[in-house]
Amino acid sequence: MPKRLTADQYIQGLLAHDRLVLSRAITLVESTLPADQALAQQVLAAVLPHTGRSVRVGITGVPGVGKSTFIEALGMHLVGQGHRLAVLAVDPTSQRSGGSILGDKTRMNQLAAHPQAFIRPSPAGRSLGGVARATREALLLCEAAGFDVIFVETVGVGQSETAVHGMVDFFLLLMLAGAGDELQGVKRGIMEMADAVVITKADSGNELAAKRARVEYQSALRLFPHAASGWAPVARTCSALTGDGVAGVWEEIGRYLTLTQGNGYFEQRRQEQNLQWLRHSIREALEERFYARPEVAARLADVQQRVMSGQQSAFAAAAELLGLDGGA
Amino acid sequence: MPKRLTADQYIQGLLAHDRLVLSRAITLVESTLPADQALAQQVLAAVLPHTGRSVRVGITGVPGVGKSTFIEALGMHLVGQGHRLAVLAVDPTSQRSGGSILGDKTRMNQLAAHPQAFIRPSPAGRSLGGVARATREALLLCEAAGFDVIFVETVGVGQSETAVHGMVDFFLLLMLAGAGDELQGVKRGIMEMADAVVITKADSGNELAAKRARVEYQSALRLFPHAASGWAPVARTCSALTGDGVAGVWEEIGRYLTLTQGNGYFEQRRQEQNLQWLRHSIREALEERFYARPEVAARLADVQQRVMSGQQSAFAAAAELLGLDGGA
Repeated sequence: MPKRLTADQYIQGLLAHDRLVLSRAITLVESTLPADQALAQQVLAAVLPHTGRSVRVGITGVPGVGKSTFIEALGMHLVGQGHRLAVLAVDPTSQRSGGSILGDKTRMNQLAAHPQAFIRPSPAGRSLGGVARATREALLLCEAAGFDVIFVETVGVGQSETAVHGMVDFFLLLMLAGAGDELQGVKRGIMEMADAVVITKADSGNELAAKRARVEYQSALRLFPHAASGWAPVARTCSALTGDGVAGVWEEIGRYLTLTQGNGYFEQRRQEQNLQWLRHSIREALEERFYARPEVAARLADVQQRVMSGQQSAFAAAAELLGLDGGA
Repeated sequence: MPKRLTADQYIQGLLAHDRLVLSRAITLVESTLPADQALAQQVLAAVLPHTGRSVRVGITGVPGVGKSTFIEALGMHLVGQGHRLAVLAVDPTSQRSGGSILGDKTRMNQLAAHPQAFIRPSPAGRSLGGVARATREALLLCEAAGFDVIFVETVGVGQSETAVHGMVDFFLLLMLAGAGDELQGVKRGIMEMADAVVITKADSGNELAAKRARVEYQSALRLFPHAASGWAPVARTCSALTGDGVAGVWEEIGRYLTLTQGNGYFEQRRQEQNLQWLRHSIREALEERFYARPEVAARLADVQQRVMSGQQSAFAAAAELLGLDGGA
């Protein structure tokens, strides 16, 4: 098999639910080579009518919260019900040399080996924008290849969560029970994005603490404003070890889908997300072009220094740099 | 006096703390006429060394929370201590015909009449980006004119809070006591920006409910991650009617300043905010230029429709529109 397939081979392979072709198509959308990008866009355009028919779930939580074991447990529950599950990741800190949270598939032994599951680590070595874009395109490819549930996981310590929130239908925040300190690593704003907070590791004598944490988070979530979806975020406990609460998490997602598909929010949100991706793609390309101009790049560090120290106003500095752009 | 002053008249007037000149200089930065903008930048550049020496406080809360009376009470407390206070607003919904939350200065009777206070409604009739930019420039002008405390208020129902958060040192969220429903109007994410939550109207038999709300919010705030500032957000009650708690709010801000000026966060944050404004100014100008191109404007609605309905991928559509730009 050649290194790169033809557009037709990718398209036919995806629609035939060929996992090997899916894997290679994702490699293609991750590539930054112009020829690969052009081919990738051709493939995406062809399979687009076959996308959109999955439930997209964002899952976040700091390292140590038990994300892999949670995904393994919930994933096995889903494939047991007949679902086909793809697990993707957005982790801009991951390096090509490994270090991706999903790089070590051994933490998802059973799921990784299951014929109805597909696990793919985060693309590496690129900016958040690049990683998020590649992941979103991979998500569409997985849908074209027949996966009806997509998990997009992220590490919960950076800005990736906003990107993931912009590509999923339901956003799940994993938390540990504890005295409050456990939240130190979670970035501000993440809790308010959550449609559900799940307290993990509710087992091995930790049950009571988990239950207490659940009550605390549930009342904290009640203080948050009602979302446009009409959904009131829930807090639950769960043990990947005993399996307690795992099915319950999926039931909550089901309730969310029933509600939002009924009131029209689900479809409306998907449309808004599409428009957002259009705006972001344009913005990123414009900024990339601008900052890559030699005359801008040559002046930037100096201008930033003056703005930072308050010697020049941000607006005057912007006008100066934009002037170098020749008004183009 | 002519309609427009010379650059020198603006500069001398500001540095002489002339309120009438300040008012006209703000009108100048609010103007969208290219000639006014050029003059405004000249004035800003000249007074820039005299800016930055105020405490910048963002104040938000939905209509009905008692924002004007709170600002009047806290403001009178501050001028009584010898401070010079400027009150600005960011309200992109306000219309030239009135409707600005500060348009009706009668709700701040005493403060509006006080020689150490300066109240300026939100600039009207522009986008959030335009309003935010004008307000940030007005803030610098107020500092040049000798005001040492600046309040920037916003209505708490839109995206303005993020813009205000990006221009202030301390962010105050006003809340009413109640059963949780009162939060409906506050946008998600705002609570996690708050350095302090103040429960207003803790008077007239409402004292107990306010105290209960304070405890609730205080424990909710504890669940939030620690901020980079090292500051743990606080919840307090306050009555603009009896004056109870008003001085206490200012004391919290003082504690925040002591902490963050001591650990270096205050200065570092100001520098980051400057850089952010540079990036945003450039981004806005690039996007404005792009979407204003006739060939882009002519295709945009059609492309958006196809992306929204899922007929075209966001990335392919972006590439199509960017191609119209001739790679410039």
